[in-house]
Amino acid sequence: MKQQKIKIGILGYGNIGRGVEIALRNSEDMELVGIFTRRDPLIIKSVYCKNIYSVNELEKWQDKIDVLILCGGSATDLPIQGPKYIKMFNTVDSFDTHSNIPKYYAEMNEKALANEKVGIISIGWDPGLFSLNRLLDNAFLSNGKTYTFWGEGVSQGHSDAIRRIEGVVDAVQFTIPVVESVEKVRSGTNPDLTTREKHTRECYVAVKDGYDKGIIEKEIKEMPSYFAEYDTFVHFVSLEEVKEKRGAMPHGGFVIHSAKTGINNEHKQLMEFSLNLDSNPEFTASIMVAFARAAYRLALKKDYGAKTIFDIPLKLLVAKSEEEVIKELL
Amino acid sequence: MKQQKIKIGILGYGNIGRGVEIALRNSEDMELVGIFTRRDPLIIKSVYCKNIYSVNELEKWQDKIDVLILCGGSATDLPIQGPKYIKMFNTVDSFDTHSNIPKYYAEMNEKALANEKVGIISIGWDPGLFSLNRLLDNAFLSNGKTYTFWGEGVSQGHSDAIRRIEGVVDAVQFTIPVVESVEKVRSGTNPDLTTREKHTRECYVAVKDGYDKGIIEKEIKEMPSYFAEYDTFVHFVSLEEVKEKRGAMPHGGFVIHSAKTGINNEHKQLMEFSLNLDSNPEFTASIMVAFARAAYRLALKKDYGAKTIFDIPLKLLVAKSEEEVIKELL
Repeated sequence: MKQQKIKIGILGYGNIGRGVEIALRNSEDMELVGIFTRRDPLIIKSVYCKNIYSVNELEKWQDKIDVLILCGGSATDLPIQGPKYIKMFNTVDSFDTHSNIPKYYAEMNEKALANEKVGIISIGWDPGLFSLNRLLDNAFLSNGKTYTFWGEGVSQGHSDAIRRIEGVVDAVQFTIPVVESVEKVRSGTNPDLTTREKHTRECYVAVKDGYDKGIIEKEIKEMPSYFAEYDTFVHFVSLEEVKEKRGAMPHGGFVIHSAKTGINNEHKQLMEFSLNLDSNPEFTASIMVAFARAAYRLALKKDYGAKTIFDIPLKLLVAKSEEEVIKELL
Repeated sequence: MKQQKIKIGILGYGNIGRGVEIALRNSEDMELVGIFTRRDPLIIKSVYCKNIYSVNELEKWQDKIDVLILCGGSATDLPIQGPKYIKMFNTVDSFDTHSNIPKYYAEMNEKALANEKVGIISIGWDPGLFSLNRLLDNAFLSNGKTYTFWGEGVSQGHSDAIRRIEGVVDAVQFTIPVVESVEKVRSGTNPDLTTREKHTRECYVAVKDGYDKGIIEKEIKEMPSYFAEYDTFVHFVSLEEVKEKRGAMPHGGFVIHSAKTGINNEHKQLMEFSLNLDSNPEFTASIMVAFARAAYRLALKKDYGAKTIFDIPLKLLVAKSEEEVIKELL
């Protein structure tokens, strides 16, 4: 008897949604049953999926979708969509507004339990894989210090902030770890680093004719929380150059933990997890697809509620039997 | 009301046992109730623990120990001690003979279930943390290729193999990753690497007077499975130099996963986990202590049986509440 495939729905067809569509091609135990969009389904150019529907039809799909992957953003989409759709579907999302996660978790957990659903939240690489490494660091060597560096890569939020400035046509912002600080951390000296010492910000900006570049540059560099606390470099380039720089949205970063063990704390111990990604959204999407497999399996076991990466036995992520996992991966 | 501490026993007082003793000093939610040894308890020089007993008394401690950490070796100790003590205690061990893990797992699982105990097996960094990374690599980017490199560091097994040669007083063997191969892997070209292309072996050997160094060198270099398939370098040094080189048994290594995503697999994605350890046994011991916490919590939930790192929600490793974990680490 052929095993039933896990039926996946995609909500929201931006960079992440498209990444999920692509990642599902490599997942033989899953099938994509439909992409749901707030836009007119007829104008969506998908990679291969022909089943594109209006989000308004989603309610009717409750029996036909095992896991709905929420591909919207954390600012405005997920706070509405998460609590709405967890009542109807098992979900996976990438909610990443760190300070609001406890509130979002509580709301998702309550509704998931009430409706016997599984909602895996805050999945991706940060929060997500980086969180997992921070947890392991803390678990094993709790007397050490954990450093998270992001980049070199495109920060969507910072690029958006520049684009909101009057006169800017397009912009892309690269977050870059300060090499000297990274080396200091890797040397095991556990330095105290200021915001400025950890990352620099490089901005590639295309402006409309007639606007004063000096004023725009000043506005960027003095923008509070986004740029004022950093060494920020602004490069005025053409619209084409901005697009080229953006590429597939490369990103990456590393979590480094530096601690000491021994009778007199005489032994340095260094743990590091790093990512170097040509495409941030496609990688994030690949992670979400694996967690959709876990959501399906948790639901089968009636282990309902909101879950984070910390709650899930990680064997649930792979399309392998218990025996294969032990034999091939342990 | 003060929370009860988790009561830990150590079985076997070698490098790992000593590392566990040290690691427990940093774990406020645990207390070390005793070290159990096959040697005469009176000759054991512990770091701080005064409660040192003969292993023969262990059976009487079933009500006084929550988790017994098995600090013996995989070759001869654990295959006996694991199945014996899982009948009486929740256990954590570092069983690392890869090819025998399925058999060991099955035996431990059966006995653990029959006696309502939790036995967490094969804990450390490989198997252990490296396994976890191999699993994540496979889960997220299953079309990629995973490479495990060990070193630079001391291989206990290879050092022992040299010491068994007649005329050798002491020896220490360093496993060293081949830099060019590591760089090739990191560049995303997914090379096929032979055993020789992945690691070299450096041996520091002290010999007795009157033995022919040429013969000993030849014997090392031609030893099947241990050295014959590698570029092996032999250095004859004094006994003091061997001890100095060995130090606290430094080790480390990295798991690198290189894969592609995109409509036409046009985007390279690189994941890497690495360790750089001054003391291999102290690090391994620190991991085992965190898993002892998980074993205790699983037993409280009556989630009995043998477990690997793949089976355990990782939040069980840290001495923090659910809320703290989400707020501080996610």
